[in-house]
Amino acid sequence: MSVYLHDIPLPQAQAQLREALQNANLWRVLGTEIIPLNEEALGRVTAEPIWAKISSPHYHASAMDGFAVRSVTTHGALPSKPLILQVGPEAEYVDTGDPLPEWSNAVIPIENVESLDENGKITKDIRVPKSIRIRSSVAPWSHVRPLGEDIVATQLVLPAGHVLRAVDLGAIAASGYQEIKVARRPKVAIIPTGTELVPIGTELRQGDILEYNSLVLAAQIKTMGGEPTRLPITEDDLDLICKRVQEAAQTHDLILLNAGSSAGAEDFSAKVVERLGTLLVHGVAVRPGHPVILGLINRKSEIKNRKSNEEIASSWRAEASPRNDIIPIIGVPGYPVSAALTIDIFVEPLIAKWLGRKPKEFQIETATLTRKLVSPGGDDDYVRVVLGKVGDRLLAAPLSRGAGVITSLVQADGLALIPSGTQGIDAGEKIQVQLYRTKSEIEKTILMIGSHDLTLDLLAQFLAEHDRRLVSANVGSQGGLIALRRGEAHLAGSHLLDTETGEYNISYIRQYMPNIPVKVLALVRRAQGLIVKRGNPKGIKSLEDLTSPKVQFVNRQRGAGTRVLLDYHLNLMTIPQNSILGYSQEEYTHLGVAAAVASGRADCGLGIAAAAQALDLDFIPLFQERYDLVIPKTHAGSDLLTPLFGLLADSAFRGAVTQLKGYDVSVMGTIILED
Amino acid sequence: MSVYLHDIPLPQAQAQLREALQNANLWRVLGTEIIPLNEEALGRVTAEPIWAKISSPHYHASAMDGFAVRSVTTHGALPSKPLILQVGPEAEYVDTGDPLPEWSNAVIPIENVESLDENGKITKDIRVPKSIRIRSSVAPWSHVRPLGEDIVATQLVLPAGHVLRAVDLGAIAASGYQEIKVARRPKVAIIPTGTELVPIGTELRQGDILEYNSLVLAAQIKTMGGEPTRLPITEDDLDLICKRVQEAAQTHDLILLNAGSSAGAEDFSAKVVERLGTLLVHGVAVRPGHPVILGLINRKSEIKNRKSNEEIASSWRAEASPRNDIIPIIGVPGYPVSAALTIDIFVEPLIAKWLGRKPKEFQIETATLTRKLVSPGGDDDYVRVVLGKVGDRLLAAPLSRGAGVITSLVQADGLALIPSGTQGIDAGEKIQVQLYRTKSEIEKTILMIGSHDLTLDLLAQFLAEHDRRLVSANVGSQGGLIALRRGEAHLAGSHLLDTETGEYNISYIRQYMPNIPVKVLALVRRAQGLIVKRGNPKGIKSLEDLTSPKVQFVNRQRGAGTRVLLDYHLNLMTIPQNSILGYSQEEYTHLGVAAAVASGRADCGLGIAAAAQALDLDFIPLFQERYDLVIPKTHAGSDLLTPLFGLLADSAFRGAVTQLKGYDVSVMGTIILED
Repeated sequence: MSVYLHDIPLPQAQAQLREALQNANLWRVLGTEIIPLNEEALGRVTAEPIWAKISSPHYHASAMDGFAVRSVTTHGALPSKPLILQVGPEAEYVDTGDPLPEWSNAVIPIENVESLDENGKITKDIRVPKSIRIRSSVAPWSHVRPLGEDIVATQLVLPAGHVLRAVDLGAIAASGYQEIKVARRPKVAIIPTGTELVPIGTELRQGDILEYNSLVLAAQIKTMGGEPTRLPITEDDLDLICKRVQEAAQTHDLILLNAGSSAGAEDFSAKVVERLGTLLVHGVAVRPGHPVILGLINRKSEIKNRKSNEEIASSWRAEASPRNDIIPIIGVPGYPVSAALTIDIFVEPLIAKWLGRKPKEFQIETATLTRKLVSPGGDDDYVRVVLGKVGDRLLAAPLSRGAGVITSLVQADGLALIPSGTQGIDAGEKIQVQLYRTKSEIEKTILMIGSHDLTLDLLAQFLAEHDRRLVSANVGSQGGLIALRRGEAHLAGSHLLDTETGEYNISYIRQYMPNIPVKVLALVRRAQGLIVKRGNPKGIKSLEDLTSPKVQFVNRQRGAGTRVLLDYHLNLMTIPQNSILGYSQEEYTHLGVAAAVASGRADCGLGIAAAAQALDLDFIPLFQERYDLVIPKTHAGSDLLTPLFGLLADSAFRGAVTQLKGYDVSVMGTIILED
Repeated sequence: MSVYLHDIPLPQAQAQLREALQNANLWRVLGTEIIPLNEEALGRVTAEPIWAKISSPHYHASAMDGFAVRSVTTHGALPSKPLILQVGPEAEYVDTGDPLPEWSNAVIPIENVESLDENGKITKDIRVPKSIRIRSSVAPWSHVRPLGEDIVATQLVLPAGHVLRAVDLGAIAASGYQEIKVARRPKVAIIPTGTELVPIGTELRQGDILEYNSLVLAAQIKTMGGEPTRLPITEDDLDLICKRVQEAAQTHDLILLNAGSSAGAEDFSAKVVERLGTLLVHGVAVRPGHPVILGLINRKSEIKNRKSNEEIASSWRAEASPRNDIIPIIGVPGYPVSAALTIDIFVEPLIAKWLGRKPKEFQIETATLTRKLVSPGGDDDYVRVVLGKVGDRLLAAPLSRGAGVITSLVQADGLALIPSGTQGIDAGEKIQVQLYRTKSEIEKTILMIGSHDLTLDLLAQFLAEHDRRLVSANVGSQGGLIALRRGEAHLAGSHLLDTETGEYNISYIRQYMPNIPVKVLALVRRAQGLIVKRGNPKGIKSLEDLTSPKVQFVNRQRGAGTRVLLDYHLNLMTIPQNSILGYSQEEYTHLGVAAAVASGRADCGLGIAAAAQALDLDFIPLFQERYDLVIPKTHAGSDLLTPLFGLLADSAFRGAVTQLKGYDVSVMGTIILED
């Protein structure tokens, strides 16, 4: 096994890349081009300052429909003492935007004028009367847009390095341009490697991995203003990868070599860079994504074939030009969350530099962490979080930290950093978060916590149509009530059976949320039962069958309502927990249980019918239970939750829930408790 | 003259448009299309929820390079008591991402394993040893990514109405899609009308108006996700405009008819709408931009020609479809600031509805107004502002309120509303501002106030390269010092001559900013003199010549350093102010004075050489003066200003200033005063 990659601190890695590029004169705007001034220029970056070539307006223009006059001629006009001006020598009709006659220096708006005919009578022929009557004077330059009111020739209209928006295009046009010099788009080749990779749309077999990283990378490059090329999947073969990299190097400014950046037996990226150029960095102390590779590769030999010696000589003489025999290459880790972070910390600043714009900046806010985060002290550890405002506090709930969990990128409202040197951050502590959304979007986020139910996905979809975002965290029913007590969510989903009274939730609410007034609404009644493989090959029929040594069970986590229900019935039936194989194997959601059964990891688990239906499994109904929404009174009256209450009575929403197997909406919206 | 348009309140106008579109079933997603899942999907809007078709991972995958084992087999392994597992029955090598063998339920990472050969010796053949030695046990599912860790088939991945970002494309691919159903882009025709309009790039004559509104409108439509078509300029001819609108209606979803929306003699937009359909609204009580027209037009007759009766019949049967015989038309006012507001308040929400996404939202912050804003009480009055943070206060400085000033759109950091029913807002009062920039950008804004100097544009350009934005407001030197006292800027530019001591600025600083410690740095020495027409046709040589009745002068405003200088020398020379024609005609900048001379509005004015040079005028130097930067000590040590101080010693910046005529940089950076 090759020596494992050696992690260096992030700032050092960034500096090494920057210095290597500076030495090659590649840490600068790569090149410029002149493009027509049309809507395709949106998002391009100005390559030089825009100094106005003409003034706007370029003459003294009337700002109103009316009559151009000399201010001095109007002196003395009063409501009680009107003045009459002769059209021609003393007054001339102008439309808005018309140039003022040379002799005039003010405009009287048409609505302040009486137009008179040859007999001094008021006429409707307002534009060419014989004379006009006015009842007040006008100051010089009244209702006139003087030359240069908007733009004076030579003034700075936009600086270089400005990302063009719609209004900028208008200002540039008004300044006398019909073309504009912008930074050329950096060309980025994306090379996915890996024998196990298959293209999007392939029918998957065991071991196949869908290659979608190149899609995300290409879209990221496009978003930041570069021009991506997605190359086909290359298998794990050093020579083949080298060949593809060399080819791509001829026509691109940067190569992203995806996966193979670690130090395993089939990780060739470092070897590719060593063979074709210089390996600058292999390993950066960041999480996720530490196996990053930074390097430079040569494209000289190929260039010799393509350019005459004379051309090469002249390119050397032009010392100010970037070197064109070297291009950077970045080995991007394979896990999608690692890949995204590599793009953020290495590629975005590079593309920004090449375009001459500022690197993308995010608003940073202080939030309260809802869950303890542990971190190895040596790494800069990046954690994606969901944000919501509960009461006065902005809360940051960490998302799954698995590097393979792309949904954590989709759901993230922001990115928090646990800096190197920190062992972790406790729940309730403050943390700085880069925001991916505006604060007003975050303030429309409903944080729900507790037990998972499939209707929550439907609720999220319906709420999205009512300008609310539902973010739900699955921590089980008890966990949800505890989180409500800590003020960490707006509401909780709960289906906790009081095993003494047979009633749902209320006694638990009193226990876990003492002295917190609540409103409890029923959401649904649903069937709980055993999720088994299609055709029920082990013939499982009841809880007794779980004690068979041939039946592998999968359980829900401690505190989950389903777990309480199971324990309640096991107790009634005097079945010992340790007689069940897999009792201690825990999943956090109904779908997790179903997935365990679908994959063969377990033969059955207790859960809801909809989860079985979702994964095409069989379901043996055992019990009916009620699933409630628990809402602290402080939130029950808030605008935030109003659309949610509206949906409980909405026939479209009820209809959609009814489509799910095992659901009964007749109780939906019933008030169970109101303090 | 036709009856003048009748302004109605904004909410009423918005409601009338919405209701008319609802009645035509046009207040909904217009249509959908299926597009391939690639980077071109960026920015498109999901037309239906994305429910996962497959799980990810779709099998139990190893999360590390290592050996798949059964957890139970590893029990009892300790550093002091290693266990040996036979490769084949008890352990099997897996790469990261490989499926786990069916019999295994955990992975031991390769770095925790000793690979042994047939003799029980450590071997380098790490992937196919005969056996492995382990020194700790592993829990079930350690180093495994279980099926569905990221995505479980059937879960909600993205709601409908979601604007696609790079990471979303990856998640959609991971969910088993290779195509995606999105809202089709609304097609918007933009018809510029006006006989005075000329296309961008035309050599301008008096009265010509550059037609760039259609460019801005098209770019705005593109930015919001629509598909714009810019049609050629149509002259002011009712029949011609009607013809063009009818043609455009056949292939578009919305028509923007630009200008002609007021009620002047050549304003045909309302007549066009009345002739082709229904005029809903003519005039909205907003500023700027009240002459908005909202209407519906028919495209029925043409459709009859294009579709068979059968097709029409079938389209009528499909009652859920939008009506295709009617489309909305919006008459957009001609001034660019009015046009932009019309787009914001009427078009953006409509396009959002048609795409099924949420309307664009801006973060709203409370800022302190720096200058009193007067407003007619009946209108919703929108004012663009520049924002900066001075000390702890976020300040909003109103930009020019001229509807023709497109640079106010370019410079705006935000939009403030003076709601209808309010007569205005005093300086120092709080105002709510929609932010166009992130707060971190705003916090990098240097607010400069006071006297104008051409070097400030250069300074702005150089500061932009150092991640700072310089925003300068021209209120004259004295105005600048007063603003500093009020805490309304970070620094002021000043060139106030003490007419008793001959020294610059210090006595004024003490007078206007008592008890405020300051640092004063020299920026430049510059020539002040008379700006005259090219060739100096009136033969002006000195201040005495200003008293000629043939010479029209243009002055600077009270408090401007140039005005102080003029008055000082007039006094020395005992020239009475009222002997100068135009003494009371005031401009606020050097370029304003030069523009007045260039346009013929004045024969001369006192100003700096660079302003004359900029507009190709002649210059008669009279005096040399020093222009200083006045910085309260509280800001002098801030990070914000550090790059500015650096530039004062920067040879590139000094070189650029030297290129301007009449400038001497030898004093640049000299400390004049430090409290």
